[in-house]
Amino acid sequence: MNSYQNLSMSEQKAEYGAVRARFEAFKSRGLKLNIARGVPSKEQLDLSQRVLTDLTAPEDYFADGVDTRSYGLSDGLPCAKAFFAELASAPAENVIVGGNSSLNMMYDAVMRTMLFGIGGCEPLVKQGRLKWICVVPGYDRHFAICEQMGIEMVTVPMLADGPDMDAVEELVRDPQVKGIWCTPKYSNPDGTTYSDAVVRRMAGLKPAARDFRVYWDNAYCIHDVYGEGDRLAPIYPLAVEQGNPDLVLQFMSTSKISFPGAGVACLIAGPNDARDIRRLLAVQTICPDKTNQLRHVRYFRNAAFLKEHMKKHAEIVRPKFDAVLNALDAGLGGQDYVRWSRPKGGYFICLWVMPGTARRVVELAAEGGVTLTDAGATWPLHRDPDDSVIRIAPTRPEVAEIAAAAELLCVAVRLAALEKLMGQ
Amino acid sequence: MNSYQNLSMSEQKAEYGAVRARFEAFKSRGLKLNIARGVPSKEQLDLSQRVLTDLTAPEDYFADGVDTRSYGLSDGLPCAKAFFAELASAPAENVIVGGNSSLNMMYDAVMRTMLFGIGGCEPLVKQGRLKWICVVPGYDRHFAICEQMGIEMVTVPMLADGPDMDAVEELVRDPQVKGIWCTPKYSNPDGTTYSDAVVRRMAGLKPAARDFRVYWDNAYCIHDVYGEGDRLAPIYPLAVEQGNPDLVLQFMSTSKISFPGAGVACLIAGPNDARDIRRLLAVQTICPDKTNQLRHVRYFRNAAFLKEHMKKHAEIVRPKFDAVLNALDAGLGGQDYVRWSRPKGGYFICLWVMPGTARRVVELAAEGGVTLTDAGATWPLHRDPDDSVIRIAPTRPEVAEIAAAAELLCVAVRLAALEKLMGQ
Repeated sequence: MNSYQNLSMSEQKAEYGAVRARFEAFKSRGLKLNIARGVPSKEQLDLSQRVLTDLTAPEDYFADGVDTRSYGLSDGLPCAKAFFAELASAPAENVIVGGNSSLNMMYDAVMRTMLFGIGGCEPLVKQGRLKWICVVPGYDRHFAICEQMGIEMVTVPMLADGPDMDAVEELVRDPQVKGIWCTPKYSNPDGTTYSDAVVRRMAGLKPAARDFRVYWDNAYCIHDVYGEGDRLAPIYPLAVEQGNPDLVLQFMSTSKISFPGAGVACLIAGPNDARDIRRLLAVQTICPDKTNQLRHVRYFRNAAFLKEHMKKHAEIVRPKFDAVLNALDAGLGGQDYVRWSRPKGGYFICLWVMPGTARRVVELAAEGGVTLTDAGATWPLHRDPDDSVIRIAPTRPEVAEIAAAAELLCVAVRLAALEKLMGQ
Repeated sequence: MNSYQNLSMSEQKAEYGAVRARFEAFKSRGLKLNIARGVPSKEQLDLSQRVLTDLTAPEDYFADGVDTRSYGLSDGLPCAKAFFAELASAPAENVIVGGNSSLNMMYDAVMRTMLFGIGGCEPLVKQGRLKWICVVPGYDRHFAICEQMGIEMVTVPMLADGPDMDAVEELVRDPQVKGIWCTPKYSNPDGTTYSDAVVRRMAGLKPAARDFRVYWDNAYCIHDVYGEGDRLAPIYPLAVEQGNPDLVLQFMSTSKISFPGAGVACLIAGPNDARDIRRLLAVQTICPDKTNQLRHVRYFRNAAFLKEHMKKHAEIVRPKFDAVLNALDAGLGGQDYVRWSRPKGGYFICLWVMPGTARRVVELAAEGGVTLTDAGATWPLHRDPDDSVIRIAPTRPEVAEIAAAAELLCVAVRLAALEKLMGQ
C-alpha cells in the first residue's frame, strides 16, 4: 500500500473506512493493556529473588567491619562503592551509594546545588535566571525536576550518535546554563547510545559556568537486549583526561537489574564534588539502608556476574521488543511519514508518527484499551512541538498482549494520519 | 563525703591526689569504650531478625494490590501508612511513609520549605532572615540541619514537663520564626516527656508566620524502659481540635524498634501539607523501598504487637540504664554541683556537671578510654553556654563495660570539678 500522503482523496476515504472498521473491531475486543512505563515484568523481578533471601542470620549482615543493620556510613558501604566503581570505571572513593532511587539522588543533587551551590559557587537560588539543557526527546522525570525547581529548559536535538554536540558546546558558553540531562546508553525514549566521540566531547566541555554539571543518568548501562548490545565509553576517565574531573555527576542503579522499587542507587562525582556532597549528606541522613546494599553486592558480586544476569533479562525482554518491531513492520511498513527506533537494549521503542497526530494516536489507543505514555511527555513541559513522538514501553505485559497492543497502535497511527490528511 | 565546693583548700588538694590516683589506675586498664551515640546493641537488633527473613517467595512481596518490589506509591504502602497512623492517632491519609531515615525526612521537609515554601507561603530562601526554636539541651542532628540551611537558632529551656511554653508562645509572635524542634517523649538527651498541658499548648500555638511548623520528632514514642513508662498525648487530635490541622509535622521511625540503618520512617502532616508534600515528593522519587515497609508491617502487625516487642528491648536496655544510674549514685552521690536524669525510657541519661567543666570531663574520659558525645553537642552550634551538659548513651556496650565507663566518668567529673575549684 502506498504511503497515505500519496493517496488520492477517494483512496484516502476508502482507506479510512477500512481502518476505522479495524479499529472498531479492536475496540470490541475490550483490551486493557498498559505499555506506558518502563517497568520490568514479574518474571524479570523473580530473577533476583535470591537478593532478598540469601542473607538470613544476623552475622550475614556484617560486612566491611560493620553491622549493616545499624547506623553509620552516610555515603554507603565500601563494598557497594567498589561494586559500582567497577561498572563506572571510576575510583571507589568517588562513589556515594544511597537508597533505592537514582531519581531521588539526581533530585537531591540538583536540590543541593540550588540551596548550597556546587564547586564553591553561589547557590543557584541566588543566581537569578537558570537554564538547563534537555536533549529531546528525553525522560519526563528529568524535565519534571527542572520544572519544579523553576529552571528554564533549553532543548537540543538527539542525533544518530547522541546529542547535537555543536549545539551543546554553543549553549554552555552561556553562564546561566547549569546542567544537561543525559541518558547516554539506550536513551529514554529513543534508544540512542552516545558514540565515543560524543562522550569525549561531553567530557571535554568547557562551560562558562564553573557550576555547570553533566547529569549522566546511566540507567541502562548493562541493559543489552540484542547480542552484545551497544558499547558506551566510560565518561569519568575521559573527563579526567581532559582536565574536567568534577564535570560529571553520574547516576546508576540496580532498578532494572534487581527491583525497580527496592534496588540500590549511586552517585559518582568528581573528587571535589564527592567531598562536598559527603559533607552535606552527613547532615541529611545518618546512613542509607546498608542491608539492601549488602544483599545486592553479595548476590551480584561483580560486573562479570552481572553481565550473565543481564542475559536472563534479555531472554525475557527480547521477544517483547520483537513483538513490537514485528507489529510495526507489518502494520506500518511502507508508510513513510512514520519511523521507529530499533534499539539494541534499554526499555523503550520510540515511534515518530505523522507530525500533529501523536496526541490523537494516544487518545485513539486509549479508546481501544491500550494505555501509552502521554504524548508530549518526552519533551520539557510536555510540549512536543511536532506532536509526533510516542514512547512504547513493552517490558511488563505478556508477549501476546504486547503484540495486540502494538497492532492496535498501528491502526491508531493510520487512523490519526488519515484524519489529519482528510482535515477532520 | 562533702560536696567539693564545701571542702577547704587542703581538703581539696588531698581529694585531688586521691581522685587523680583513681584516674591513673583507670587509665592503666586500657579501656576502649564508646557511650557516645544512641545505638541499640547487637542483641537488640537480633530481636527483629525475622523482619529480614520472614518474606521469601515473590508472592510474599505482594500487598495492597501491588508488587512491592516494583515501582509506584511515592508516598508509601497503604498498610504501612495504617501501621504508623495507629501509633500516631492520626488518619492514614496524612501519613507519608519513606525510606530508612526519619532524619532524612525531616531534612527534606525543611529543604522543601526552603525551596518551595509551605502552606502556600513564599519559599523560605526568599524571606530573608529565618529563625528556629531549639529546645535545649537537644539533639545535635536537628541543630545541624538549621546550621546547614543558614537558619538562626533561638534557644528555649527544657523544664520538668517539656519546653518553657511561655517562652515558645512569645517567640512565635515573631514572623521570622519558622519552626521548633521537639523530641516530645524521652527527649534527647534529657529524657523529659512533655506533659499533656505542654502538648496541648504546643498544638494550640498561634504563630505569626503561617509557615511556622512544629517539627515533632517522635523518635521514642514506644521506647519505654521502666514499667509502663511515660505517657505522651497524641498531638494530631489536639492540633485539629484547636483549629491547627496543619501546624505539626510529626516524624516516626522503626530505627530503634527494628534496625537503626534499615528500618522504616514516616512523616505525618496536616491534610493540606500532606497534599502539597505528596505533589512535590512525586517529582523527587518514584517510590520508597516498599519491600522494607512490607517486611516491617508483616512482622510488627500493629501497636499491640509492638508494645510486646518493645518489652524485649526494655529487658536488654534496663540493666544498662541501671548500671549507669547505680554508678552515678555511688560515684557522685552527695556532690550537689552535679545532677542527672532518671528517664523511664528512650536512649539517654543526661548529666549536668559543674558549670565550666563538661568539655574537660569529656577530655578526661577520652584519656581514660571512654568516648562520650562531644560536650556542647546538645546545644546549637555546639555552644553550651554553661559547659555543663553531658549526654550518656549506654545502650550499645555490655553491662560490665557500661558500669566501668560510668565509674570512670564519675572520676572524671570529680577530677574536672576539683581542677576548676583549685583554679588549675
